Amino acid sequence: MRIRFYNARILTMESDSVIKGELWTNGKTIEYIGDSKESDKPFDRQIDCNGNLLMPGLKNAHTHSAMTFARSLADKYNLNDWLMKAIFPREAKLTPDHVYWFTKLAFADYLAGGTTSCFDMYFHKEASAKAAVETGFRYVFCGAANDYGGIDELEEYYHALNSYDPLVSFIYGFHAEYTTNRNNLEIISGLSHKYQAPVFAHISETASEVEGCRQRYGMTPPFLFERLGIYDYGGGGFHCVWFDDKDRDLFIKKGLWCVFNACSNLKLASGITPVHDFVDNDMKIAVGTDGAGSNNSLSMFREMYLNTVLSNIETNNAASVNPFKILKAGTTGGALCMGITDSDVLAVGKNADIIMIDMSKPCMQPENNIVNNIIYSADNSCVKMTMINGKILYENGEYTTIDYEETVKKCAELLPELA
Amino acid sequence: MRIRFYNARILTMESDSVIKGELWTNGKTIEYIGDSKESDKPFDRQIDCNGNLLMPGLKNAHTHSAMTFARSLADKYNLNDWLMKAIFPREAKLTPDHVYWFTKLAFADYLAGGTTSCFDMYFHKEASAKAAVETGFRYVFCGAANDYGGIDELEEYYHALNSYDPLVSFIYGFHAEYTTNRNNLEIISGLSHKYQAPVFAHISETASEVEGCRQRYGMTPPFLFERLGIYDYGGGGFHCVWFDDKDRDLFIKKGLWCVFNACSNLKLASGITPVHDFVDNDMKIAVGTDGAGSNNSLSMFREMYLNTVLSNIETNNAASVNPFKILKAGTTGGALCMGITDSDVLAVGKNADIIMIDMSKPCMQPENNIVNNIIYSADNSCVKMTMINGKILYENGEYTTIDYEETVKKCAELLPELA
Repeated sequence: MRIRFYNARILTMESDSVIKGELWTNGKTIEYIGDSKESDKPFDRQIDCNGNLLMPGLKNAHTHSAMTFARSLADKYNLNDWLMKAIFPREAKLTPDHVYWFTKLAFADYLAGGTTSCFDMYFHKEASAKAAVETGFRYVFCGAANDYGGIDELEEYYHALNSYDPLVSFIYGFHAEYTTNRNNLEIISGLSHKYQAPVFAHISETASEVEGCRQRYGMTPPFLFERLGIYDYGGGGFHCVWFDDKDRDLFIKKGLWCVFNACSNLKLASGITPVHDFVDNDMKIAVGTDGAGSNNSLSMFREMYLNTVLSNIETNNAASVNPFKILKAGTTGGALCMGITDSDVLAVGKNADIIMIDMSKPCMQPENNIVNNIIYSADNSCVKMTMINGKILYENGEYTTIDYEETVKKCAELLPELA
Repeated sequence: MRIRFYNARILTMESDSVIKGELWTNGKTIEYIGDSKESDKPFDRQIDCNGNLLMPGLKNAHTHSAMTFARSLADKYNLNDWLMKAIFPREAKLTPDHVYWFTKLAFADYLAGGTTSCFDMYFHKEASAKAAVETGFRYVFCGAANDYGGIDELEEYYHALNSYDPLVSFIYGFHAEYTTNRNNLEIISGLSHKYQAPVFAHISETASEVEGCRQRYGMTPPFLFERLGIYDYGGGGFHCVWFDDKDRDLFIKKGLWCVFNACSNLKLASGITPVHDFVDNDMKIAVGTDGAGSNNSLSMFREMYLNTVLSNIETNNAASVNPFKILKAGTTGGALCMGITDSDVLAVGKNADIIMIDMSKPCMQPENNIVNNIIYSADNSCVKMTMINGKILYENGEYTTIDYEETVKKCAELLPELA
């Protein structure tokens, strides 16, 4: 399949400049970006972009996709009670069928919001891998092990899911320090060393998590993980709300990724990540929504917006965080963080993971600054098309690979089983 | 025009329960809400809602509509520099033609986001009144006087705009204490007394505003306005970020409206309104986006969301603000605040200012809690239809009264004049 997008504006994310011209895809990759020109070979489809904007798909670098089942289910709890009273008891009831359908619902949500990949920590991985391949979604698993399960299967998943399908990959991960004992952490470190592989986990999400870790080990989670060798081959952490300067400097020294989840942290009253400080220090940063149970949206637009503005109050600076750097984190950063390095920017030979932003939408007008419009004003209503691996999966509100009506129906049928 | 909406779910906002049934409009008002039944008279149109949700239109209770020209124009400044360096110099160049087109662009934005009315403080009021009537938008002016202009015209506007068109009304208002000297404040108080009319203004938006007022008058803005008799006939204030307990109690005692603008306050680094405290005290509350220059979105969904979650951190409570109370503020509260008391809820005889939420959108699924889905997860992409005064103005992405393409084109042409 060869597709020509013409009359386009293109934000490659290699810089913050928007160019005018064409983008051609050939099969799974980008064949050409540049001025309007003739092609020797025929196209299967030619799309007049009418001046709309092509840019790399958004990368949701931390989520629990199947937790769409928990959207607006238990909005009254802070993190600990939310997990213990509302979520863990229901997750114990989850079957592969639940995970398959509620993950499909999340994929529909991602596609409608211009998200082309997610870094997903959840259970029943075969079910969501199947949903990803059927959908054509570029899907990166994060290991979900903790003391309640998953440790024994980590190595098996590492092999099985990294050879499952070109769209699917797996990175070592575990839930968090406070749910994973030292023995299990050492097992994970051993796997990381055996395969020279990065490891990710929730880290310093709440003040009580950090305090608990200090009591148990006399140090913060980043230093504990480093001490145990978990970070010897890279990786990083989700949330990073309660980092002190030493935690931050350790992450800088080790070149680790910080994934921001402002909406979930606000919703669960966990705290506000000092995003400005991470950005000022040129750290490796990415953005994720966390699950729909705690956000409750899966929109990367809202997530990027909030991560850009939330530091303004503490710093008393309306421009505490540069919007382009957050857009970079939400696209390129996410891709590099989750190891899909050919989906980072729009360039010849890169994966054709591309979205089209409808520039005519009122919230994108006028065009004083297109990047700032995206960060401060855009929402899912601006997404006109979402392409992954050279295939258009969502266009003008319609899905090409998801039977959306059936997905909604199945989720509604299954929901009472998780009550 | 008689329209039948059937197969609907209806959130009247008289309570938080969602009923199933029908809603009929007849001319400008609601004729029937209830179970499915036959009608003796013919309908001009019958709309199968497919289970989608009808609810009152959102009320944007503080905005500067024509400031769409300033969206993403000057995102680097805190409030004072933003006004003095970026906004006031450009506003000095504004003509009625600018205001007409950039207000039309805002109306398109409002309609796409389910907003059926706004409380608009801006200049060249004839131009925006014309745009409102042409669009069919229910439009409430707030006086925009300060020391730089507008005082002399307040009374004339009061008469002219309150008799201009049934869709248009005018409420006394002025910019803020720090831009309006005592003499002018007394003139405004005199007008309020002459017409027994409420008055609104920006109030306690920044810490420096409150500090300046204390230095000038030895009291906070709420007490100054009360002392000058400005609040003897009701009204209230926009922002209300830096209220202390005494300010709050004064507002309670006088029955004044607090209009929340969380997004703008975050963006301009002004502060965080203690929304939880206002809600806990059952105060009169409404929600507004402020202008697109400082938000930069005009989405009431994002505004309601942020006003619901932003208090969570300070209170260490994931449920610090009840979502239904903010949805009430964003619909009923706004209507009562701006004096359009027949647009507050869906009920027989009330104005047919109605929106349809597309319940099939991924972000509205599954349906554990519809109200919470609206507050925590919805965005403009969920708005399927917007009706004002019994007339459908926006449906499935299309405008019926706005030539949208022309509006975008005119705004783009005019933009360089305001550079």
